[in-house]
Amino acid sequence: MTPPACTAHTLTDIATALRADLIGDGTIVVNAVAHPLMAESADTLALAMDGSAEHALAQTRAISAVVAEGRGVALARLKGGIVVHRPRYALAQLLELFARPPVVHRGVHPSAVIDPTATIGTDVSIGAFCAVGPGTRIGHRTQLLPHATVGAGVVIGDDCLIHAGARIGDRCVLGHRLILQPNVVIGSDGFGFVTPEKGSVESARETGRVEATNREIVRVNSIGIVVIDDDVEIGAGTCIDRATVGVTRIGRGTKIDNLVQVGHNCTIGENCLIAGTTGLSGSVTLGNRVSLGGGVGVSDHVSIGDDAVIVARAAVATAVPARQVWAGYPAVPHREFTEQLFSVRRAPRLLRDVQDLKQRLARLEQRMAHGD
Amino acid sequence: MTPPACTAHTLTDIATALRADLIGDGTIVVNAVAHPLMAESADTLALAMDGSAEHALAQTRAISAVVAEGRGVALARLKGGIVVHRPRYALAQLLELFARPPVVHRGVHPSAVIDPTATIGTDVSIGAFCAVGPGTRIGHRTQLLPHATVGAGVVIGDDCLIHAGARIGDRCVLGHRLILQPNVVIGSDGFGFVTPEKGSVESARETGRVEATNREIVRVNSIGIVVIDDDVEIGAGTCIDRATVGVTRIGRGTKIDNLVQVGHNCTIGENCLIAGTTGLSGSVTLGNRVSLGGGVGVSDHVSIGDDAVIVARAAVATAVPARQVWAGYPAVPHREFTEQLFSVRRAPRLLRDVQDLKQRLARLEQRMAHGD
Amino acid sequence: MTPPACTAHTLTDIATALRADLIGDGTIVVNAVAHPLMAESADTLALAMDGSAEHALAQTRAISAVVAEGRGVALARLKGGIVVHRPRYALAQLLELFARPPVVHRGVHPSAVIDPTATIGTDVSIGAFCAVGPGTRIGHRTQLLPHATVGAGVVIGDDCLIHAGARIGDRCVLGHRLILQPNVVIGSDGFGFVTPEKGSVESARETGRVEATNREIVRVNSIGIVVIDDDVEIGAGTCIDRATVGVTRIGRGTKIDNLVQVGHNCTIGENCLIAGTTGLSGSVTLGNRVSLGGGVGVSDHVSIGDDAVIVARAAVATAVPARQVWAGYPAVPHREFTEQLFSVRRAPRLLRDVQDLKQRLARLEQRMAHGD
Repeated sequence: MTPPACTAHTLTDIATALRADLIGDGTIVVNAVAHPLMAESADTLALAMDGSAEHALAQTRAISAVVAEGRGVALARLKGGIVVHRPRYALAQLLELFARPPVVHRGVHPSAVIDPTATIGTDVSIGAFCAVGPGTRIGHRTQLLPHATVGAGVVIGDDCLIHAGARIGDRCVLGHRLILQPNVVIGSDGFGFVTPEKGSVESARETGRVEATNREIVRVNSIGIVVIDDDVEIGAGTCIDRATVGVTRIGRGTKIDNLVQVGHNCTIGENCLIAGTTGLSGSVTLGNRVSLGGGVGVSDHVSIGDDAVIVARAAVATAVPARQVWAGYPAVPHREFTEQLFSVRRAPRLLRDVQDLKQRLARLEQRMAHGD
Repeated sequence: MTPPACTAHTLTDIATALRADLIGDGTIVVNAVAHPLMAESADTLALAMDGSAEHALAQTRAISAVVAEGRGVALARLKGGIVVHRPRYALAQLLELFARPPVVHRGVHPSAVIDPTATIGTDVSIGAFCAVGPGTRIGHRTQLLPHATVGAGVVIGDDCLIHAGARIGDRCVLGHRLILQPNVVIGSDGFGFVTPEKGSVESARETGRVEATNREIVRVNSIGIVVIDDDVEIGAGTCIDRATVGVTRIGRGTKIDNLVQVGHNCTIGENCLIAGTTGLSGSVTLGNRVSLGGGVGVSDHVSIGDDAVIVARAAVATAVPARQVWAGYPAVPHREFTEQLFSVRRAPRLLRDVQDLKQRLARLEQRMAHGD
Repeated sequence: MTPPACTAHTLTDIATALRADLIGDGTIVVNAVAHPLMAESADTLALAMDGSAEHALAQTRAISAVVAEGRGVALARLKGGIVVHRPRYALAQLLELFARPPVVHRGVHPSAVIDPTATIGTDVSIGAFCAVGPGTRIGHRTQLLPHATVGAGVVIGDDCLIHAGARIGDRCVLGHRLILQPNVVIGSDGFGFVTPEKGSVESARETGRVEATNREIVRVNSIGIVVIDDDVEIGAGTCIDRATVGVTRIGRGTKIDNLVQVGHNCTIGENCLIAGTTGLSGSVTLGNRVSLGGGVGVSDHVSIGDDAVIVARAAVATAVPARQVWAGYPAVPHREFTEQLFSVRRAPRLLRDVQDLKQRLARLEQRMAHGD
């Protein structure tokens, strides 16, 4: 198979799209981007926005490149190029021009099983072996890759991209322009259990000791749903539980990475960034534009304020105010964490210092006692 | 689609089922439960068992509510209500009455592929695109949602609910009334590898240094199985490896949350609670009624005793006795952890104190030396 | 169903295969291996390579066993046995002889959907509901279990075993003899986002404070691929993101456990071992033969040198030199971590010591002041 041809662009067009400076021949046409050493022909625009890639321009087969502001000189031996102000943002814009979207089946694949009461928009793509339940509505131009499961009474907006093996449970509501990576789970039941009498965890929380035993564990059914607003992206294998009663909500524009757990009844604001393997317990509230690093944990019922940044691997057990940076286990303000870390690293020396002080003090005391 | 109508109940019936106190008109009929602000009509029973929800009763459209013991006064402006002793347990009972089970296909969906040598019980539901292997037995009334994979020689008991995309490997044995959330994996191969000569990890464990290199890595096949007892629930995306030889076992009534890793040859007792993103290495043993918080890690071959409670994010590297609460990295008894934490937080001040002591002591020593 | 009969072997054959010592009757034929207490008949070879299993030989129904070097005496009451030098390696060899590979469909299952432009090798097995995209090449004798999704333009080598529900994205390239456990995701999009102006995380990294807000979040498309070399195994639910541009690479012989996250543009060397629930951020580089314990986190752009061993749960935020053992949060050399741990454990006593020193010093100062 020939891979689907990418769109071709002139350097002038690219510079315009990026609002960047063009240097040299703007009529050069490129149809791909690559690291300078991976550029196989003159059709490829070399990406040389960091030092090592720029260095590699000396050996590239490309005849044009993108470089960072102030580094236009690196384009000297090429026929043309583009100088960008904020390289990572420019990369995003470039990769919008040279996107490689997944190859999808046009229309509804004959093997798909779609309930006759489901409503399917125009220009959708529904791949092999997709299952769509009764009463579900799928918006225009939305694409389902193979093996997606969409339950009953689900709403999916327009222009969504649902990758292979995503599971969307009954009655969940998804906005427009969502991207769900492969094997995402939306609407699994919450981890809700209760003991008829006080249980071991409750007693441990109250007293620090186990003074009760969980003779019987009773399930708390999840009858709520998950609502995901527009422009959200959810990473591969990530699981978002439905609410016990009501809604687990992911706000507009929020991006969640792979293998993240979002517990029942969480409320996540707009434009949050949640990195991989992070876990949110039940009823966590994130404000808007909150950033959680990789592997963060947040205890149940904890709130994190707008624009807060939680450093990777922090374990958040108490409320975090807006615009603060927190780190640690348990998490504390970053300055405090840094101070603690410094102290811990100094601790071995401190032990020796105190040992020394004890000896010297004992000597002084002895001398005083002897009246020297 | 009209969502399937929920069962309707009178307040009297609900009070009886919950063994709770009825206040006001017991003939009121409700067919749903919701937060007071989400209750859209008189048919909905408002849930007002915590302070903020109780406060919201002032604005509800509901005419009946559930409140906590001692808070019957909050029902004053409603036509009826129920007063419960232990709110969370009452919620579990209520949500049993108002459950919203997944919509399933009645009988075997024509698209399912079921090996002719498989034995299927009565009143089962097998959804679209399910695959059931040779020799497998599926019990009565068990429900498989779409895209479930059941291997060869598997046994699944009665009244199980297997959500979409669950994978059950060959020869695994599952009890009755199990719930497997979407994309659960049962019976993946263990992470078992060995180097022909001593490897880097072994040398690091013995000496703290890397004195060997893993020139060759040899696979240890997993020929064992996973056995899951009755009434177990397993969360979305959770993976349970089969034993190398013998059985990885999950005891009766145990509940496991999302994205949990259970290594080969683990033995988990009855009625344990394991929260999300926790990882158990190989050959871990949990007693009965053990609770693991979210993001806990347990090293291989470690045992945790009955009723022990491990705090979220703890890293357990040594045996935990029964009925203890442990926390920390590495985990220690909770009291010790709290003391360590206190010390770490005091450490910056301690550094300054010791600095001060050093100066004062030096002055004293000098004075003594000069014989002042 | 009778489970497929295992191959039968004589003790002599087994001893030869293992290069181990035979004791007693080499003509004994066995067709299974089991713990001594699980051995149901004389056809089963008892595994008694550790103390407790050896002890259990007193009650076994087996007539032959495998024991560790120096423990041949434990075979006294049996009819034959094998004495091995390195028990875990011997176990690997034994389980190669007594492997229980998954039951697969011979040939291509009629329900599979294979694009007519795909190229399928000889003697493949493609299970029920597998989807194979256009232009994809699948090597000889490779086996796909049910519900695997293989995208467009993918290359899969010979003799691979792809378990149920694995997702392989467009254009990814997989070598020979790979094993992908159930629900693996290869080629999900990277978690790449950028704000047009400096964002909150950038400001937090630079100053420790949030001095910017993420008003808009722009996606950085992933147009790269994942390349996996020969003899790699990837655990259940693990997700490997494709590169932004270029290649995310997993080197020959590397083994990755369950629920691991490998970010975009990571480069992982040969024969690495990565345990479960570990997370690698984007652009991480691992050398050859690196071992990561369970639940490790590695920050973006960090390199870990050849043969390094990272202890379970460590959070690696800076480069790790070759052949070092690191631990901690944040990770430091193991010796330093041990020292820190010792200090933290001593800290409560240190607090008391310093308190005592302060009092004694104050008394001395007072006496000096009074001229005693």
